[in-house]
Amino acid sequence: MAPQYAPSLRSRLAPLLLCLQTLFIIISALYFKNRVTVNKDDLRNFYSEFQDVNVMVILGFGFLSTFLVRHGFSSTGFNLLVAAIASQWALILTGVESWFSAGRITVDLKSIVVAELCTASALIAVGSVLGKANPVQLTVIVLLEVSGFVLNEWLLRTLLKVRPLSSIMLLHIFGALFGFTLTWIMYRKGSEDGFEKEKFDRKSGLFSSLGTVFLWMFWPSFNSVLVPDWTPWRKLGAVSSTYLALAVSAVTAAAVSVLCSPKGKLNLIQMQSCILAGGVAVGVSTSAIHEPWEAMAIGFTAAIVSTIGFKYLKK
Amino acid sequence: MAPQYAPSLRSRLAPLLLCLQTLFIIISALYFKNRVTVNKDDLRNFYSEFQDVNVMVILGFGFLSTFLVRHGFSSTGFNLLVAAIASQWALILTGVESWFSAGRITVDLKSIVVAELCTASALIAVGSVLGKANPVQLTVIVLLEVSGFVLNEWLLRTLLKVRPLSSIMLLHIFGALFGFTLTWIMYRKGSEDGFEKEKFDRKSGLFSSLGTVFLWMFWPSFNSVLVPDWTPWRKLGAVSSTYLALAVSAVTAAAVSVLCSPKGKLNLIQMQSCILAGGVAVGVSTSAIHEPWEAMAIGFTAAIVSTIGFKYLKK
Amino acid sequence: MAPQYAPSLRSRLAPLLLCLQTLFIIISALYFKNRVTVNKDDLRNFYSEFQDVNVMVILGFGFLSTFLVRHGFSSTGFNLLVAAIASQWALILTGVESWFSAGRITVDLKSIVVAELCTASALIAVGSVLGKANPVQLTVIVLLEVSGFVLNEWLLRTLLKVRPLSSIMLLHIFGALFGFTLTWIMYRKGSEDGFEKEKFDRKSGLFSSLGTVFLWMFWPSFNSVLVPDWTPWRKLGAVSSTYLALAVSAVTAAAVSVLCSPKGKLNLIQMQSCILAGGVAVGVSTSAIHEPWEAMAIGFTAAIVSTIGFKYLKK
Repeated sequence: MAPQYAPSLRSRLAPLLLCLQTLFIIISALYFKNRVTVNKDDLRNFYSEFQDVNVMVILGFGFLSTFLVRHGFSSTGFNLLVAAIASQWALILTGVESWFSAGRITVDLKSIVVAELCTASALIAVGSVLGKANPVQLTVIVLLEVSGFVLNEWLLRTLLKVRPLSSIMLLHIFGALFGFTLTWIMYRKGSEDGFEKEKFDRKSGLFSSLGTVFLWMFWPSFNSVLVPDWTPWRKLGAVSSTYLALAVSAVTAAAVSVLCSPKGKLNLIQMQSCILAGGVAVGVSTSAIHEPWEAMAIGFTAAIVSTIGFKYLKK
Repeated sequence: MAPQYAPSLRSRLAPLLLCLQTLFIIISALYFKNRVTVNKDDLRNFYSEFQDVNVMVILGFGFLSTFLVRHGFSSTGFNLLVAAIASQWALILTGVESWFSAGRITVDLKSIVVAELCTASALIAVGSVLGKANPVQLTVIVLLEVSGFVLNEWLLRTLLKVRPLSSIMLLHIFGALFGFTLTWIMYRKGSEDGFEKEKFDRKSGLFSSLGTVFLWMFWPSFNSVLVPDWTPWRKLGAVSSTYLALAVSAVTAAAVSVLCSPKGKLNLIQMQSCILAGGVAVGVSTSAIHEPWEAMAIGFTAAIVSTIGFKYLKK
Repeated sequence: MAPQYAPSLRSRLAPLLLCLQTLFIIISALYFKNRVTVNKDDLRNFYSEFQDVNVMVILGFGFLSTFLVRHGFSSTGFNLLVAAIASQWALILTGVESWFSAGRITVDLKSIVVAELCTASALIAVGSVLGKANPVQLTVIVLLEVSGFVLNEWLLRTLLKVRPLSSIMLLHIFGALFGFTLTWIMYRKGSEDGFEKEKFDRKSGLFSSLGTVFLWMFWPSFNSVLVPDWTPWRKLGAVSSTYLALAVSAVTAAAVSVLCSPKGKLNLIQMQSCILAGGVAVGVSTSAIHEPWEAMAIGFTAAIVSTIGFKYLKK
């Protein structure tokens, strides 16, 4: 079954993208300014953080979904497309506050990194409907998700006085909830008749492993990027906690996966999602972890819960 | 149709490579010296730039051409081979000037980075004839291209007093012109009877995406690597301009690609080349860009021009 | 022929992994402490070294073995699993000494990097039996290898007063010898009847190239990571020597590979192993190299020896 896009997709996608892009350029022409004062050390420091987040967002999330049969090739393209839209939109929205106070939005590596974290949240939400939604829907979803995320963070920060450090937690929770709601709405639509694009292919599985491996490697950067520089011991703690939790998750996920499988085989797709559970769990609770064993115990629990959850939800 | 190498390829390739390599080792034994005075901070700084350029040259360009049916596997091998030859040759040629003045060629990370940029130019030229030329031809082409590039840069710098900052521009232009001439010569040879190796394969397309994604991620490093350290605001400007231009290119390329296609489908191979157009365009004009919107407008224009160009040239 | 795991694999693998993991968590709860004093510059410096070693160990070694027909997909999973076990075990064992003197094991990026180097040694040994051993055997092998490696290093350092700088050499030699012994034992077992999983597949070859390319790119980090920071010129020397040796190896391996092949074709799998020979050879002799040409000559010799060795051993 070939993908059934509405015949009018062409007439809608191109104008939508061109209008959005023109709008972004006009806004940037009016309000964006490059930062002109910058310290040599800060630049070097932010640059490597910027690179790491970039790798996570573009490569990690892009290749994570390539195990879908029909979707492998296009998922990397769609991911790049929605990431490019989301990060521009997030750059504008996160700058609104400074626009109110200073009349312009300063663009530097810090603001690009924050925009990419919003993008990551949007890609988590989009990941749950990849293979079900067409590009026009994906574009709209991403715009809504980023708006919701930025608004939500602003409300939490100004009304409820939540510390900005927790925004990594927010990112995963908001992305996951948004994705969950989306899946629920789209499934309800009655289109239950088998999403052929969701089928799994062994060859493409390797690309999916590649995506997982990159997420695994750069997760410590992801969890430590928003820890401020003047508390280096916290940053170190976040990095080593994440590393330990990921290692424990990998071992535990393999064990539970073998236990759950009727034939006692390692289910690698299942293992992939659960390995990352440790990283998410530590990211969410990073400010409460003080000793290495706490991180390891969290990784252990997260892997067991997510493997069992994966097993029973997919039934 | 199996690849039709001349029967004498074996008798020519191995001696050519061994002679070249022996020559390089003799030259290095006579004139190369390791730098012995180095600052701890400089080392760390140059090291990450060296890594980023390395990733671009070896991985990015290596996997960009894997979408060719028969060529996927060998293109990564040939790319590594010609990159290794080109960077050694460039290391020698770019050191000739300091050899005249000081009697020896100092090898440090700075000189390796410059040599790798020459290599990048050679790989751009080689990319246009991959799948048409055999390894012996590729080796000769690469040696000529590097010699031409270094000579050209030297002439521009000493005779025309062009600033060294523009050498990124030079790199793309020289590489592209050289490649264009090569393609013209090789096509004229009458071997128009269908290059089977140029056919496209869906599975290998994913590897090509991987190459594109790596180029996308590390392009900001590429455009900022030659900006001197004592102007950090310029470096920051080059990084964020490149990022914005790439994001705008991705969105615009998708839109124009849908408009151009008869069935309104996203042509991902086409999209891949055009996404990178934004990076090239910003790299060429980096010293003239002062505001974010200028970078975004350049990315927009570059993507439209290159998508339309791609469409009509391939007809 | 489907893989013939013992029917009791399921009943053994899961309990083994869960017991090991629980043991590791208990040990960490009793003795692990996070480092709390850390300098901002040191953190940044160690962090990038940690990332590079991580990429080598998880991605490089993980994808290097994907060219085996049946093993491609699972080899990345098994590699991640054994790497996670090995690095936790190594973190504990390398901390035993400081536990004797201070009563606790301090976890910081330095200790994680050292643990990952032990893991690399274990993965080299495991690489020689991938496709022959089941996950339970792999787990046991990895635990033994790490214990042997740490014990061996401790004996050399305390009894024979060998300098710690040479531990990169130790890593390759110990890993290779351990792997060699393993292969010998496993082959002797009489299971000579064709390891179908060892067959080669063209498509998966690209993934193997990817692994090679990553090892190639990050080898300079690998060879320089243990050079102390207060001798930056040595670090620079290690980086540029490794780069030159790798470039020379690539060219020489291609030439010798063409000479050895009956049809004069490039054998890329063979080329892949030999390219890396240069990196290993330079790593082993890094403290004895003072001039660039010495590194290049070592790369040349290593590539010739390993290509010829590969050719005659596989017969």
